Amino acid sequence: MKKVAVIMGSDSDLPVVEKAITTLKEYGVPAEVHVFSAHRTPEQAREFALNARKNGFGAIICAAGKAAHLAGAFAANTTLPVIGIPVKSSTLDGLDALLSTVQMPAGIPVATVAIDGAVNAALLAVQILSVSDEALADRLQQARTAATEAVLKKDAAVADKYNS
Amino acid sequence: MKKVAVIMGSDSDLPVVEKAITTLKEYGVPAEVHVFSAHRTPEQAREFALNARKNGFGAIICAAGKAAHLAGAFAANTTLPVIGIPVKSSTLDGLDALLSTVQMPAGIPVATVAIDGAVNAALLAVQILSVSDEALADRLQQARTAATEAVLKKDAAVADKYNS
Amino acid sequence: MKKVAVIMGSDSDLPVVEKAITTLKEYGVPAEVHVFSAHRTPEQAREFALNARKNGFGAIICAAGKAAHLAGAFAANTTLPVIGIPVKSSTLDGLDALLSTVQMPAGIPVATVAIDGAVNAALLAVQILSVSDEALADRLQQARTAATEAVLKKDAAVADKYNS
Amino acid sequence: MKKVAVIMGSDSDLPVVEKAITTLKEYGVPAEVHVFSAHRTPEQAREFALNARKNGFGAIICAAGKAAHLAGAFAANTTLPVIGIPVKSSTLDGLDALLSTVQMPAGIPVATVAIDGAVNAALLAVQILSVSDEALADRLQQARTAATEAVLKKDAAVADKYNS
Amino acid sequence: MKKVAVIMGSDSDLPVVEKAITTLKEYGVPAEVHVFSAHRTPEQAREFALNARKNGFGAIICAAGKAAHLAGAFAANTTLPVIGIPVKSSTLDGLDALLSTVQMPAGIPVATVAIDGAVNAALLAVQILSVSDEALADRLQQARTAATEAVLKKDAAVADKYNS
Amino acid sequence: MKKVAVIMGSDSDLPVVEKAITTLKEYGVPAEVHVFSAHRTPEQAREFALNARKNGFGAIICAAGKAAHLAGAFAANTTLPVIGIPVKSSTLDGLDALLSTVQMPAGIPVATVAIDGAVNAALLAVQILSVSDEALADRLQQARTAATEAVLKKDAAVADKYNS
Amino acid sequence: MKKVAVIMGSDSDLPVVEKAITTLKEYGVPAEVHVFSAHRTPEQAREFALNARKNGFGAIICAAGKAAHLAGAFAANTTLPVIGIPVKSSTLDGLDALLSTVQMPAGIPVATVAIDGAVNAALLAVQILSVSDEALADRLQQARTAATEAVLKKDAAVADKYNS
Amino acid sequence: MKKVAVIMGSDSDLPVVEKAITTLKEYGVPAEVHVFSAHRTPEQAREFALNARKNGFGAIICAAGKAAHLAGAFAANTTLPVIGIPVKSSTLDGLDALLSTVQMPAGIPVATVAIDGAVNAALLAVQILSVSDEALADRLQQARTAATEAVLKKDAAVADKYNS
Repeated sequence: MKKVAVIMGSDSDLPVVEKAITTLKEYGVPAEVHVFSAHRTPEQAREFALNARKNGFGAIICAAGKAAHLAGAFAANTTLPVIGIPVKSSTLDGLDALLSTVQMPAGIPVATVAIDGAVNAALLAVQILSVSDEALADRLQQARTAATEAVLKKDAAVADKYNS
Repeated sequence: MKKVAVIMGSDSDLPVVEKAITTLKEYGVPAEVHVFSAHRTPEQAREFALNARKNGFGAIICAAGKAAHLAGAFAANTTLPVIGIPVKSSTLDGLDALLSTVQMPAGIPVATVAIDGAVNAALLAVQILSVSDEALADRLQQARTAATEAVLKKDAAVADKYNS
Repeated sequence: MKKVAVIMGSDSDLPVVEKAITTLKEYGVPAEVHVFSAHRTPEQAREFALNARKNGFGAIICAAGKAAHLAGAFAANTTLPVIGIPVKSSTLDGLDALLSTVQMPAGIPVATVAIDGAVNAALLAVQILSVSDEALADRLQQARTAATEAVLKKDAAVADKYNS
Repeated sequence: MKKVAVIMGSDSDLPVVEKAITTLKEYGVPAEVHVFSAHRTPEQAREFALNARKNGFGAIICAAGKAAHLAGAFAANTTLPVIGIPVKSSTLDGLDALLSTVQMPAGIPVATVAIDGAVNAALLAVQILSVSDEALADRLQQARTAATEAVLKKDAAVADKYNS
Repeated sequence: MKKVAVIMGSDSDLPVVEKAITTLKEYGVPAEVHVFSAHRTPEQAREFALNARKNGFGAIICAAGKAAHLAGAFAANTTLPVIGIPVKSSTLDGLDALLSTVQMPAGIPVATVAIDGAVNAALLAVQILSVSDEALADRLQQARTAATEAVLKKDAAVADKYNS
Repeated sequence: MKKVAVIMGSDSDLPVVEKAITTLKEYGVPAEVHVFSAHRTPEQAREFALNARKNGFGAIICAAGKAAHLAGAFAANTTLPVIGIPVKSSTLDGLDALLSTVQMPAGIPVATVAIDGAVNAALLAVQILSVSDEALADRLQQARTAATEAVLKKDAAVADKYNS
Repeated sequence: MKKVAVIMGSDSDLPVVEKAITTLKEYGVPAEVHVFSAHRTPEQAREFALNARKNGFGAIICAAGKAAHLAGAFAANTTLPVIGIPVKSSTLDGLDALLSTVQMPAGIPVATVAIDGAVNAALLAVQILSVSDEALADRLQQARTAATEAVLKKDAAVADKYNS
Repeated sequence: MKKVAVIMGSDSDLPVVEKAITTLKEYGVPAEVHVFSAHRTPEQAREFALNARKNGFGAIICAAGKAAHLAGAFAANTTLPVIGIPVKSSTLDGLDALLSTVQMPAGIPVATVAIDGAVNAALLAVQILSVSDEALADRLQQARTAATEAVLKKDAAVADKYNS
């Protein structure tokens, strides 16, 4: 199976990013985790991106805050799907990271998820791999069914409390 | 090859969406185009989404403006990657569509591109298919090389005008 | 009397939504409370909405955060008045939920109240029922009178403290 | 049948508001149109609101731009449902009117629709009247069916053009 | 000397408003404090505003949060200068109150100060009275001189710590 | 009678500012108009502000766009009421000018009106002078009455067209 | 004299950037103009940045729109001062470019000027060179004096028209 | 070596500003720290700015919150590079300070860094001095190398934890 790279711009993003790692593990998708900075280790980031496809990766998740260039910098150096997680920092509530990640110019897409949306970034990576992997598609479908059941159970609990 | 669905919430989104259709065609990726509304044809949208994977689709592009629920509505009914294009409408400069598309709750990701970013939505779909399709990966790389050369040519023209 | 449905997208919205339930109870309006997710239980949400009018509901209150599609998803499947409560979540201070709820396309209205405005959502439902229910109209008027008196009492207390 | 009042803060709002008037007419709902300003004719606005219920109104639509106080001023003087249309003016793209209309304090709800959302304001009024008027409910349902068919026709046209 | 009215929309605004009361007292300007709500006690607010000039007031300070209509409602019923304090509430960081207060339509000005800017609201009222009151003008000038000296003292302390 | 100074940061602001000049003229209030820049003629601005009170001014109106420091710079050098008009420029729709004008620190108030709100800036200046000038107060009241009548006339026209 | 590099992300930015080129020319500062894209020609951009100091540059101006990473990408590869011009594009009025340019993480500064602020970007570059170049400092001072005189002339013209 | 001035608008900005002072010290760049207010000590600020170049300064850092005029006021009175730090205050998350600092009119640039970006303000000052100071340039380069190594070490730690 292709691997998924999980890159964060700073290890302070780890509390957010960890949910992506856990989610990938739940789906049995091999992940490789790195701290690379678009601005402090541009060479290493570039090297990683340039070789990601031939090194067996199927998608790259990049998490960064503020003027979040990380996903864009990866996307500039690979034609693999790059998934951007805008990370909320101490000011502006993540709006800066969201706009810096999503408003990419034509030619270099970044698949952006919600601010701090690490679970969805991982799920999106799994979905991408599932396009040619029926077993993964099945697991995704099972999780959906489970999620539906979880909501129905919560509905039953709430209905029990309020609607009797 | 898997197909890519291109869905718009209203045929008034066609001028934006057409660039996605053209881009897919440039890459030889089969596309199927539809007008489905999350609110006016919810049944048809749901049916399409539920059957998209078994009908041979590999990704679904959804373009919508204002309180843009279209991509989310599709994502709720398929585990295929869903790509959202927030479309700018007459007020708020597309910010409403961007937030309605990207801020999805955990469990149901939408891969969001820039406001009116139809070219990138198509490229992202091609990248997704390229994960298991080497020929597509090659074509994406060639386009990158061409884009680089185009910028260099523009640089030469500008340098010629200003730096002599 | 018609009933009012109170739907939340997640049981984490309960602290906000509870004020709506309490307010309806104060007016003696029968409420039915549910947890339905536009994305995780789309079928159940749709079923509920499609049958709400014939099941004796007069209004549907929907509370959701982030890319809040819940009210719109209900409004797409019923012609009853749907009232949307945008719920503030961990980022963007509720602006994402507000825009996702209020900026509905022509044809499918959602009656939107303030961010976290659960009391007003319930009052609006009561007002809607009061159009053909004089007793409810009277109770609303009494509450207004009581609110006026409460403010006047506060004014007297403040005046007493500062204006003597 | 109850009447619907359509109030605008200035006759410059007429191009927006006219769509509400037309929509009400399509549903055979009697409308009464007025220009009242929360700030320039506060007395007249207050008088109208105070007597609206006993004068046979079932809902009041208020359209205003900038620091849009009109809907709130009406809501303060009636317990009928008040529907607010935030009108876009020359600066800030309607955000000022949206926040001034929707962010009402607890106790005085305003049912807010999208910026310049006059059609939906009228539909919401019709929906409110339909709670106790089966014929109106039927007409709303017919319009929904027609809207669905219109989208399907557009889908057929687009499919015809792009999917053959 | 003319009096200054200090009106708040809710007694929960008192922690903000108290600084205005204190500041007026420091300048020896008589203040009258009230809790009036544009929406819950519209009559009382209107009565107060209509009679404010003949009752000896020279300026009216209004503090309110969210869809802050209070200052505008007062301004509609008096030709005295009305000063608006937008109060920050639990969402949107005061932006809703700021826009609802400052974006008044032509004809009905509100002199708006910063979000939670109660001290400046009081100072502005004192400045307004000072136009025809030389003693007040002198006191304002003395406070400026004192403020300058306070900053210079802080500068000296900082310089002492860092520049030696 | 005290004079009102009307200062603009650039003569490109004249189309906005002219409405303030006209309005002052309508009230017979003597105005003195200047182009002073907080950044390009700081000396002249400072001189003007320092001497404004003793030169017979009762209020100073300052109009500026972008990082609009003009009103603040005047307010720092006078204890007269300073009225700020945030001017919309080519980007950000005037939000930058609004925040730069209104968010003044404690001690130095600027009475801010709406973006491009030149008429209201002038009216506020007249209101300030009217605190000690009964004739001006009367004229303001007459204008209010006239404005009320103008709205009523528009209401009659609209009612005539739509309500017959 | 050190040279100033003027880099734009796309030749569509030329209408904005041209004012920077002209301004540098007015000060006799040698400029070298290039079209480099952070995403389409990352190699060339990196090479240029890495060698800029030893190639005789004293400052680098970068202009880009949307998710504007260009200035940050240059700043990551040089320790010369990098000046960022956020360019307004078809949506969001330049706010995306502003936040993407200015909100840089600690360690990699970008000296950001106003949206579309090309003249100021050039002036800032001249100011930077002027720190060790007295002749440039003199020219800057002369320009300031000329700007002051230009404003005073405009003031005289306006005063002549309105204050006679 | 030229000195760098570090000015704050209020000593409450010291916790932010202190990082700039520390950073300058790390580079061995002499700093002079002051509390000057654009509005409360305009004279002292102006005097300092007017004489800064001849007093041996090479750059001026100004930190201020809310309607942050400090950097602009300095920039108006010197042709040295002025670096602005927008400081986050109790409302609006620093957006007011950012726009008030960065949106300067043509002719008077302010080199703006991120909200609360004191480290980068200092680094930018060092970069400016480094244009004519090879030793400083070397130290900047060394710090970059150290930062790269620090990130690589963090990457190794993270990789060690997650990728084994």
